Amino acid sequence: MPRFEPKNPDFRATTMAVFDAQPAMRTLGITIARLEPGEIELAMGYRAELTQQHGFVHAGIITAGLDNACGMAAFTLMPKGAGILTVEFKTNLLAPAKGERFVFRAGVVKPGRTITVCEARAFAVQADAESLIATMTGTLMALAGS
Amino acid sequence: MPRFEPKNPDFRATTMAVFDAQPAMRTLGITIARLEPGEIELAMGYRAELTQQHGFVHAGIITAGLDNACGMAAFTLMPKGAGILTVEFKTNLLAPAKGERFVFRAGVVKPGRTITVCEARAFAVQADAESLIATMTGTLMALAGS
Amino acid sequence: MPRFEPKNPDFRATTMAVFDAQPAMRTLGITIARLEPGEIELAMGYRAELTQQHGFVHAGIITAGLDNACGMAAFTLMPKGAGILTVEFKTNLLAPAKGERFVFRAGVVKPGRTITVCEARAFAVQADAESLIATMTGTLMALAGS
Amino acid sequence: MPRFEPKNPDFRATTMAVFDAQPAMRTLGITIARLEPGEIELAMGYRAELTQQHGFVHAGIITAGLDNACGMAAFTLMPKGAGILTVEFKTNLLAPAKGERFVFRAGVVKPGRTITVCEARAFAVQADAESLIATMTGTLMALAGS
Repeated sequence: MPRFEPKNPDFRATTMAVFDAQPAMRTLGITIARLEPGEIELAMGYRAELTQQHGFVHAGIITAGLDNACGMAAFTLMPKGAGILTVEFKTNLLAPAKGERFVFRAGVVKPGRTITVCEARAFAVQADAESLIATMTGTLMALAGS
Repeated sequence: MPRFEPKNPDFRATTMAVFDAQPAMRTLGITIARLEPGEIELAMGYRAELTQQHGFVHAGIITAGLDNACGMAAFTLMPKGAGILTVEFKTNLLAPAKGERFVFRAGVVKPGRTITVCEARAFAVQADAESLIATMTGTLMALAGS
Repeated sequence: MPRFEPKNPDFRATTMAVFDAQPAMRTLGITIARLEPGEIELAMGYRAELTQQHGFVHAGIITAGLDNACGMAAFTLMPKGAGILTVEFKTNLLAPAKGERFVFRAGVVKPGRTITVCEARAFAVQADAESLIATMTGTLMALAGS
Repeated sequence: MPRFEPKNPDFRATTMAVFDAQPAMRTLGITIARLEPGEIELAMGYRAELTQQHGFVHAGIITAGLDNACGMAAFTLMPKGAGILTVEFKTNLLAPAKGERFVFRAGVVKPGRTITVCEARAFAVQADAESLIATMTGTLMALAGS
């Protein structure tokens, strides 16, 4: 049973369309793995060109995944025609982003007409074992639709 | 007069070497424009493949620039042989990342043996006019050198 | 089954002693309701002298409870003789702090030798019904004992 | 020359009235020392009953001062009749809150119709010398007036 009732019956198609309209997600190789009202999971493979000086994925790239996860999770609960923007986010980096692939899971903590607060976690996956590498709390704002 | 006295007399070469060792910075097209003890400016050109759904640079990419600026500013004050990692950061997104190019300026607020706190600001540059688009406060940790 | 194994077998007495040594907690009327390795619940009654202009408890007071919950949760996992300090925290205020009493629940997300990350939630309680009013992510640092 | 033009010509009286309507500020002994459009300075004396286990003022109390400074700075730029609420804030604690008195200075970084972002700094004052003890970035929201 979903925790949230979406206002937009087409939330799935609407959210995927916004996600697909972001060239940065293609450049970083981030895709949607799962999408429910108020919840999302994104996936990203390891790519050497996105690493820092120790060969781990750069914190900024992990943050791009977490931020998108928060934004898309919030967006699933917004009314049709709404726009979305990120007001702010805060990330704690808990362990090196060392893995074959990465998943970003976000959920809405508090939906609102204007402000929605989400939490997200990033996991590194190695030999099918997940380890928590980063957390985010993000504040998103709905922009009135036309 | 610099605000801080570097412990590492080769801080400039050491910091540039760590920066250059990050493939993610090359992938994102971010370079060092200025480097002083406890202060740095990074530069990045606009690239369509790093944008979100409205054609502006993705918040995660802006955050990658801010995070690197904080990390490198902190690193300039660390002793030779030290490693650095980002503990956490918080970003406020103030305006769309709309411009021909972008600059990321970071400065150390409080250096410490273990923990260093930095602040950074991202600006969009259009026709040589700068506008503030994002702020970051970041907490960095020094890892003892060998 | 506790999620964490405490390094200090006397963690309970040690943590309660540090908590009791804080005059601010007495002034704010905050007490320990539950204490486990890596987890804590604090309780606080409504007091008119701690309110803001609408009669709700001031966000700063709620933050004091969340911060203490994070600190004490982290402290339960630190070795005997260690000191603790808060590096930083971030709070989202989700709803007015309107209730007869308030609870602050914190848990360790990632313990570490130097840095421990905690998450906490504040709830208002009215007629035995709890509602989420605020969240915190906090970064704590262990100081080596003598 | 002030950096910002207030929308409310009575911003000074309006802001002071909201500040004075907060019992928590009286309880903590926090007063307004200076007030300009988009800028504020609050003052607080040392009080033993607001300390933590080492005799320094509790981080939560320092945060209450910083939060109020951010809120009031933002409020000076809001239209007459608007309400204000804190969406979130993030605080870095840089040094122990050890001093005879404390000042909290906040300024608006980016005003907005709905969202305003402020930065604040807390200083401890000992023998007339100020030292930086904490920083805050805060996000405030304007609520439409009647």
